[in-house]
Amino acid sequence: MTRKIVFGEIPEIEEGSWFEGRKEMMPSSFHRNWGSGIDGNGKEGTAAIVLSGGYEDDQDLGDVIIYTGAGGNDTNSGKQVEDQQWENRGNAGLLKSMNEGLPVRVIRGFKHKSDFSPTSGYLYAGLYSVVDAWEEKGKSGFRICRFKLEYSGNNNLRKTPEEIELDYNTKEKKRKEGIILRIIRDSKISNEIKNLYNYECQVCKTTILTKSGRYAEGAHIRPLGNPHEGDDNSNNLICLCPNHHVMFDKGSFSIQKDLKLIGCESGFLFIHPKHNLNVLNLEYHRICHGYN
Amino acid sequence: MTRKIVFGEIPEIEEGSWFEGRKEMMPSSFHRNWGSGIDGNGKEGTAAIVLSGGYEDDQDLGDVIIYTGAGGNDTNSGKQVEDQQWENRGNAGLLKSMNEGLPVRVIRGFKHKSDFSPTSGYLYAGLYSVVDAWEEKGKSGFRICRFKLEYSGNNNLRKTPEEIELDYNTKEKKRKEGIILRIIRDSKISNEIKNLYNYECQVCKTTILTKSGRYAEGAHIRPLGNPHEGDDNSNNLICLCPNHHVMFDKGSFSIQKDLKLIGCESGFLFIHPKHNLNVLNLEYHRICHGYN
Repeated sequence: MTRKIVFGEIPEIEEGSWFEGRKEMMPSSFHRNWGSGIDGNGKEGTAAIVLSGGYEDDQDLGDVIIYTGAGGNDTNSGKQVEDQQWENRGNAGLLKSMNEGLPVRVIRGFKHKSDFSPTSGYLYAGLYSVVDAWEEKGKSGFRICRFKLEYSGNNNLRKTPEEIELDYNTKEKKRKEGIILRIIRDSKISNEIKNLYNYECQVCKTTILTKSGRYAEGAHIRPLGNPHEGDDNSNNLICLCPNHHVMFDKGSFSIQKDLKLIGCESGFLFIHPKHNLNVLNLEYHRICHGYN
Repeated sequence: MTRKIVFGEIPEIEEGSWFEGRKEMMPSSFHRNWGSGIDGNGKEGTAAIVLSGGYEDDQDLGDVIIYTGAGGNDTNSGKQVEDQQWENRGNAGLLKSMNEGLPVRVIRGFKHKSDFSPTSGYLYAGLYSVVDAWEEKGKSGFRICRFKLEYSGNNNLRKTPEEIELDYNTKEKKRKEGIILRIIRDSKISNEIKNLYNYECQVCKTTILTKSGRYAEGAHIRPLGNPHEGDDNSNNLICLCPNHHVMFDKGSFSIQKDLKLIGCESGFLFIHPKHNLNVLNLEYHRICHGYN
C-alpha cells in the first residue's frame, strides 16, 4: 500500500512530538519512507526530511538548517563515495518544494549532532521552508547538493523566515546606509493564480525558466498593508514576470476595466476564463498612478 | 547665495535636535527653504521635509509617515484648491529620493498634529526612506500626491524599515501559510554600479522605465550572508533587469572567466571598462549552480 504524500501539519502531531523509531512515523504519512531521509519526489515535492547524522556537511543552527541532499554515500559505511545528483528524487523534491513554497516537516534523529537533537528516538522540529539550493564540494571531495531551510511554522516563540533573513543580512549592515527593500510574498492563492497561467506573464507571456521549474510572481493589484489595505484574494492578483511586476507596482502601466493596458504597455491583459478580477481593484491601481 | 543640497545626517545636528524657527535650520543646509516644506528638486532629490500641519490628509504613526506632497493649496487659507502635480519640484524630488534610496531628514513643526510633535518650534525626527508613492483624491476632492516614509536612521531603539514592513504585511498573515520571500537590498555600491550602466541590464540591455526614472537591480554574484558570505563590493555586483536577476540567482545561467554566458543565455556579459569583477566570485557562482 502506498500512502499519499501530505504537506504541512498532520493532525495531532504537534511540533515537539517524539517518536521511538522511524517505523512509528509511517502510518500517519508523517514520514512515509523507512530507508530514505527524504519523503518526496520531483513531481510532487518533498513533505518531510529526517536529520540523522548521515552527512558530515550538515549545519544545524535551530531555526536555520544547511542540509545536504541525498545520494552518493556508501550504504554500509555512510561515507560519501560519489557525486550527488539533482535528479535524485529526494533532491528534486526539495527543489520543487522551494519553488512552490511547500512546507517541509523537519525531524531530528538521535544520531544527528546538534544542540536540538534528542538523545534517543526522533523529535519533530516543525515546518520549514526551503529558501536556497546550490551545490559544492563536500568534505569528502565529492559534489553535494545543499539546501538552506528556515523555520516557517506556527510557533510564535520561534523566529519567522523574515526575522532569520534579517538576522543574516542586516545585523551590522542595516544601519550603515540607505537601502531599498523589495519583499515579494508568495501565498497559496498566488501559487494558484501562477499555476492557472502556467507561470506565463499576463502582459508579455514570458516565463522564467529555472533548473527547478517555471517562475513567475503574483502581483497584487491593490497593494496589501497600510494604507492601501488590498486583499490577498485571486480577484486582486495577476501573474507577472519580475520585470512587469516592477513596472506595474511603480505605475509604468495600468489596466482598464476592459483589460486594455495603458501607459508604457499596449494591447490587453491576457486573462483565463476562470480568473475574475475585481474592477474596483483595477480602478484603485489606475487612480494611484494617475491614469483616471 | 544658494547653499548646496546635502543628503543624510548633518554634523552636530542629531536626531531629537530642536530649532526655534524655520530660519535656524537654513545656515547648516539642514533645511534650506523657508517658504516650502520640501527641500529638494527632481534633478537632485529631496533631502529634507517639514511636517507643519499644512495638509489635512497627513498620517503620522511615528516610524511610518503618510505624507502629502506639495502644491495646490491656497497660500492664505492653506486649503486645497486645485490638483497637486508630480512635476512640482518638491514632489519630483521625493520620487527621485525614492528611486535612488536617498535618505530624507524629517522635521516635525509645532503646528503638526501627532503624538510626536513638539509644542513649540521644530523637532528633528531623524532620517526616513521614501518607500511608496501614489495619488488619490484628498478630503478636499482634489488630487493629492502621497508618499509613504519609513524611519531608516541610526537609532537602534527605533524600528528599521524591515521591521516596519513586516509589521504591516505579516502581523496576522505570516503564520497562516507557506510563503516565499525575495528581499532585494540596494546599497550605495549597488547604486554606483547601476549608474555606471545607466540602469541597463548587463545581459539583455533592457531598462525598466518608470515615472520616477530608470530601474535596475544590483545582483550579488556570490550571495551575501550565511553560508556563502559574499562581499557587498563592486567586484561582486552586476547590474541586471529583474528577470535576469531571478534567473541568475536561481542558476539558469552563469558567467565564465572570459564573461561568456553559459546555461540558458548565450553571448557575453556587457562590461564597462571601469568595472572589474572578481573571477573567484564568478567561479563560486558557477560551482554553486553546477557549471564547473
